Amino acid sequence: MSKVEFKQLSPADFFYRNRELAGFDSPVKSLYTAFREIIENSFDGAEIGGINPDVFVSIKEKSDDVYTIFISDNGIGIPGNKVPQALAKLLFGGKYVERQSRGHFGLGASMTVLYSQITTNLPTRVLSCTRGSDVIDEYHLMIDIQRNEPIIRYHNQIPNKKKWHGVAVEVNIEGDYKRAHPKILDYIESTALVAPYASITFIDAYGILYKFNKIVDEVPKLGKAVLPHPRGIDTEKMLRLIRVAKQKSMKNFLTSNFQRVGEITAINFLKYVNIKPDKVPDQLDHDEIVRCVQGMNSYEDFLSPETKCLSPIGETVLEAGILKELEPMFVTTVTRKPQAYSGHPFVVEVAMAYGGNKIEAASEPTLFRFANRIPLLYDQYADVAAKVIRSFNWRMYKVPQNAKLAIITHIASTKVPYRTAGKESIADRPELEREMRLAMQVCARKMRVYLSRIEREERSAKRASIFEKYLPYIAQFATKLSGKKQVPPTDFVAGGKGRDKE
Amino acid sequence: MSKVEFKQLSPADFFYRNRELAGFDSPVKSLYTAFREIIENSFDGAEIGGINPDVFVSIKEKSDDVYTIFISDNGIGIPGNKVPQALAKLLFGGKYVERQSRGHFGLGASMTVLYSQITTNLPTRVLSCTRGSDVIDEYHLMIDIQRNEPIIRYHNQIPNKKKWHGVAVEVNIEGDYKRAHPKILDYIESTALVAPYASITFIDAYGILYKFNKIVDEVPKLGKAVLPHPRGIDTEKMLRLIRVAKQKSMKNFLTSNFQRVGEITAINFLKYVNIKPDKVPDQLDHDEIVRCVQGMNSYEDFLSPETKCLSPIGETVLEAGILKELEPMFVTTVTRKPQAYSGHPFVVEVAMAYGGNKIEAASEPTLFRFANRIPLLYDQYADVAAKVIRSFNWRMYKVPQNAKLAIITHIASTKVPYRTAGKESIADRPELEREMRLAMQVCARKMRVYLSRIEREERSAKRASIFEKYLPYIAQFATKLSGKKQVPPTDFVAGGKGRDKE
Repeated sequence: MSKVEFKQLSPADFFYRNRELAGFDSPVKSLYTAFREIIENSFDGAEIGGINPDVFVSIKEKSDDVYTIFISDNGIGIPGNKVPQALAKLLFGGKYVERQSRGHFGLGASMTVLYSQITTNLPTRVLSCTRGSDVIDEYHLMIDIQRNEPIIRYHNQIPNKKKWHGVAVEVNIEGDYKRAHPKILDYIESTALVAPYASITFIDAYGILYKFNKIVDEVPKLGKAVLPHPRGIDTEKMLRLIRVAKQKSMKNFLTSNFQRVGEITAINFLKYVNIKPDKVPDQLDHDEIVRCVQGMNSYEDFLSPETKCLSPIGETVLEAGILKELEPMFVTTVTRKPQAYSGHPFVVEVAMAYGGNKIEAASEPTLFRFANRIPLLYDQYADVAAKVIRSFNWRMYKVPQNAKLAIITHIASTKVPYRTAGKESIADRPELEREMRLAMQVCARKMRVYLSRIEREERSAKRASIFEKYLPYIAQFATKLSGKKQVPPTDFVAGGKGRDKE
Repeated sequence: MSKVEFKQLSPADFFYRNRELAGFDSPVKSLYTAFREIIENSFDGAEIGGINPDVFVSIKEKSDDVYTIFISDNGIGIPGNKVPQALAKLLFGGKYVERQSRGHFGLGASMTVLYSQITTNLPTRVLSCTRGSDVIDEYHLMIDIQRNEPIIRYHNQIPNKKKWHGVAVEVNIEGDYKRAHPKILDYIESTALVAPYASITFIDAYGILYKFNKIVDEVPKLGKAVLPHPRGIDTEKMLRLIRVAKQKSMKNFLTSNFQRVGEITAINFLKYVNIKPDKVPDQLDHDEIVRCVQGMNSYEDFLSPETKCLSPIGETVLEAGILKELEPMFVTTVTRKPQAYSGHPFVVEVAMAYGGNKIEAASEPTLFRFANRIPLLYDQYADVAAKVIRSFNWRMYKVPQNAKLAIITHIASTKVPYRTAGKESIADRPELEREMRLAMQVCARKMRVYLSRIEREERSAKRASIFEKYLPYIAQFATKLSGKKQVPPTDFVAGGKGRDKE
């Protein structure tokens, strides 16, 4: 009875058993997650090459509860020999550098292949071609889950006559499309909202076509890969750096391996942690390593993290996207200055859009959340943005009850502090919460100016309508009183404002 | 610029980079998570052997922001040669069977060792001895994170003179104890609440001793490992079963490899999916496998899952724990019948405790959540129990505003649908939500009977106090009126109820 068998799980087997951790739980959520994972890879694949994404995606019913998702993009493609691992091996990926990208976990695409396989027992079809390549690689892939290795069911090379580059994926997923449909539409529309530089063509499972054409040309500049910032370093990272370091002194080691550390900072810091500047890095003893790492996290005179690794949407592009998709009467956007939490830089962007016919009137603002340009549609209540909004006193900002108010939030970071691997809500790190609050205040103040003007105009319109109503009687009365025959004109009040008569 | 480097991560490296997914994010949360992970292993280690857990645990400040957690238990111990992997290799564990246990992920202990290492660069000290063994194995362990392999810094065998068995762990963690302290205390107290069969001795970082002695002897019967239920099977699981199956017919394959499937059920089911009963399992073609798996998930005539793999707390033990720890005026408990979601059986237990001096009066009920006997202290708002409580109209159940009401919920399952690997909140699966609601209704109705009685008593006490006040005057008046001298006694109203005079 008390015998315990021990066993090692492969990463694929672990996530097969705990797939809800990667966003694959119910048939609704799984279909949605598969859909977004492959779209996000397509966007990343185009933006990394400075290409305006042009993505075609369709969902089609294959049989009862089984749907075929097909996507084709114009990105840089995956090199032919890497395709099997990139799509059919978990935790294998090209995203493990300090740079902002949609994917973080090396999980999304391969989890989709895995989920397809366990629900339909079918391989995933992949086409890939890099720029300038003469051949397109076609694979039919499955995963050996117990060993976490790709199984290649079919491989062929096709001549690339049309000079296509990008990735195309055809995957079959068991799911509940009817209930996933609204989320999938929200996802596509939200993506268009923050990516007005992309073209998306989508055909839903009912056969309806949705087309979002790009309205700006400028592709967001991709964040650059950077050295790590000293804040947020742990001993593991430190030991890895020391292991491969060629520098013969701690001073040079620090300036060469960390961002924002020049000679003077290095010398001052080494003094702070009581390590000699000419100490050879791989001769640090245990205590010195720990002192150095702890010092990096407590030393206050490091410059704040570099931000060229970040790629915010920008106020202009964000505004263009909102005007196109939400058609509000008023919009204001703010891109805050970069900040950092435990060594990871981030930028908060907030927009508020008011009025029009597309934003619904509601007792609470309609919130559109984004992180590294990914729309977040689930678990809103747990998100830092929702927390900040709840704390606002909207009356102070002249926002009426049941207002048509939409709030758009975007967090760009080399490491978004998601609460789960399913990437649905963002944790309330204090630094993040503060920036979010400040950004919302900036927007809300600008909106108050607009709303005050509206309020003033409405009040004077109301006053004018009272004048309009009574002035003719007063005029008649005054005319009689003065013994005149001709009543003077009384429509100048409304006329003076250019307002239409009711 | 558009060059992408590909790389494979080991599971250890993945969770090192994404440690917040396993509950290690802030210095507060990390210390708390480390603490609970090692306590949970100790409890599992004792209960699996039918032993009343007797656990000693202490936290001590080692240096600035570094704390030493030491735990020693009386469990069945880990075999000496398995210790390095069990504690210093991720996704290695003894818990991958269909049976209820606290841990699910094979992550907790090794993540604690990993986090200790990256924050303090120190090895974790482990002692282990199985029952009846003559030697105790001592290890000092670290993890080769890039390869996910244990590093043994020290190994020794000590004679086991006192016939000890169990595991002892000493681990150093950087953390924020001051802010983690309340959560750690809550955790210990909550654990005692649902484990009155265990003894816990705890010394906190300020040196204060907490002792919880067992008050019942009966150790909960461990759930038994069982065959999988057909509902919830996917093609991967099916293929694995077929690969090792020795049965020569589908009929025998089904009855031997699944729970609750007898001959008749097997034959009817095979008819339902149009597969011949004498078909050899490993000759099923692709379509037949898919049909069989989909059929298992849609066929409605399977018996509901076995429940001997579950180990609920039980109404008596739960009540004993609550009376001891919360000292309420009223308590009621209910253990529901087992149910299942996608093939995983679960039992919901709910208790309501009212009044007394330990439960605080609050506008909302105080909620104590448990899953497989683990207290859940974070992310309450996202939990299914909180959702159900919010939906209740407490006035209907005679609960006054600002009541001293505590609600205790426990979900026992072979697979608790946690929202994250940090095991903090439970997803609102419809089957689970329904059971939770029904259990709460049962308790709330019983509580209403009690509260109605209280209300009646208070009302009659109030009435009595009015009588008490006026009766002497009425008596005097009546005495005068009747011309008598002697006023009759008037204290029988209060006296009759045995109520103290004010």
